[in-house]
Amino acid sequence: MAYDAIETPFGKTDRIVGGSATYVAYAASNFVQPIQQISIVGNDFEESIMDDLKSRGVEIEGVEMVADKPSFFWSGKYHLDMNSRDTLVTDLNVLADFDPKVPESYQGAEFLMLGNLMPSLQKSVIQQLRTRPKLIVLDTMNFWMEIAMDDLKEVLTMVDVLMVNDSEARQLSGEFSLVKAAKKIQEMGPKFIIIKKGEHGALLFNDNHVFFAPALPLEDVFDPTGAGDTFAGGFIGHLAKTKDISFANMKTAIIVGSAMASFCVEKFGPTRLQQITKAEIDERIQQFVNLVQFDIDLV
Amino acid sequence: MAYDAIETPFGKTDRIVGGSATYVAYAASNFVQPIQQISIVGNDFEESIMDDLKSRGVEIEGVEMVADKPSFFWSGKYHLDMNSRDTLVTDLNVLADFDPKVPESYQGAEFLMLGNLMPSLQKSVIQQLRTRPKLIVLDTMNFWMEIAMDDLKEVLTMVDVLMVNDSEARQLSGEFSLVKAAKKIQEMGPKFIIIKKGEHGALLFNDNHVFFAPALPLEDVFDPTGAGDTFAGGFIGHLAKTKDISFANMKTAIIVGSAMASFCVEKFGPTRLQQITKAEIDERIQQFVNLVQFDIDLV
Repeated sequence: MAYDAIETPFGKTDRIVGGSATYVAYAASNFVQPIQQISIVGNDFEESIMDDLKSRGVEIEGVEMVADKPSFFWSGKYHLDMNSRDTLVTDLNVLADFDPKVPESYQGAEFLMLGNLMPSLQKSVIQQLRTRPKLIVLDTMNFWMEIAMDDLKEVLTMVDVLMVNDSEARQLSGEFSLVKAAKKIQEMGPKFIIIKKGEHGALLFNDNHVFFAPALPLEDVFDPTGAGDTFAGGFIGHLAKTKDISFANMKTAIIVGSAMASFCVEKFGPTRLQQITKAEIDERIQQFVNLVQFDIDLV
Repeated sequence: MAYDAIETPFGKTDRIVGGSATYVAYAASNFVQPIQQISIVGNDFEESIMDDLKSRGVEIEGVEMVADKPSFFWSGKYHLDMNSRDTLVTDLNVLADFDPKVPESYQGAEFLMLGNLMPSLQKSVIQQLRTRPKLIVLDTMNFWMEIAMDDLKEVLTMVDVLMVNDSEARQLSGEFSLVKAAKKIQEMGPKFIIIKKGEHGALLFNDNHVFFAPALPLEDVFDPTGAGDTFAGGFIGHLAKTKDISFANMKTAIIVGSAMASFCVEKFGPTRLQQITKAEIDERIQQFVNLVQFDIDLV
């Protein structure tokens, strides 16, 4: 949970709440409650945001509040294609000392979403849970492949689902073909690989099965910040709601995640997620159904 | 109809038969016969290829055979990502004087596929048909936007479906968003816009409707030459077979085209298309169904 300052071709925003855990919580709480949050924030984190999250069923006992330091801060600027961005500022602040503690009340959690963070901290959370969750989903990024590959490889052996983007899948596997990359990564631990391709959708691999979910074609992507985390929140939220971790249900969960991500990019930061209604979510999911459904007669 | 010499990261081939009309005919003839071909070839064009096409129901009365010049020749080299390529040689040869003549026996054709070629020649074929076909599909490329934009704009007013890739849609419309690009291009004439995104699939736009078809995730793309033309052939072949030009049936036609294109890239040139069976096509289409189908309960 953090603050971001974002510049896109459409405008810029001063400090706005962000952080992968924030987006995951906002997205997932539409489908399942409580969300048991683990994170760290500083003395600048707005009480109103915590209150908003609590009102959505997000428990914050696992959120450490540090009195004498500010929250993690990131500032970045997106290029015109919105697929690449430059980081302008990264202030670790409270994150430098983060040592996540799983509260006793969180024990027994059935679904664990590990947002993008140092792999050793992701591992620590898994190890603190006395009963292994029914499903563990891990998000990560190229940065950790460059500075903590050994830790990342270790935590990969402990999880069920890995989420990465296409270039990260290639980097992790050393394979250019995403089909081959997914096969190699499955040998590293996770049985399910989700490869996110931004505006080009997402692929889910498991054994020899593959599923493809498109991204909704949008007139404008206003701000892609948090889209991947929002996708993750919708994905695990749907699975936790239905308690069904079959491949068939993961396909549906990816559509739900894609729908949530399509809202996220409409406004700066989590602004759009804070306004979303159940009816809007249902309508958006129906748009995905319309987007890909076709009839064919194999005769 | 032409010859290509192709180099990819996986190997290279000497002169191999190519040309957009060749790929369209190979693909479409799996679904509907006869195919009434209009093209031009030189004194080097192999009799065995013509015989092969004829055995598949391709009529060649509209194929002009020039005795004293070789066929159009193109040579190119693909980069590692297979999405970009360098042209090494372009020898127009017979194509320099091509003036397509629609044979009397082709009059009354209901479905017209205009492969990628000089827009003025595409227009000429439309004008020679005394009864307007039920559906006219146009393929084009950035090259014609650069040297013959006025002709291209004129022919756009005469067709129903335009096929372009994503960068060409942006170039033609001046819009970066593909949704906005499709809207602008619809105002230029064609009511249906198909935007091909290579390994990222294809989009179909009509009014406010949009459909997305993925490309099949493949372990290796061996040679992408002709994939777009093969897609076009499968698309129009399905529509001509079913004689249904509704949006719903175009969605199915795009899946059929995508399936055919996924075969094309497996071997050099049209080699794979020359070996394909009905059972293989059905199985491949079923893979597309599996790739995108999901169940969701909006409650």
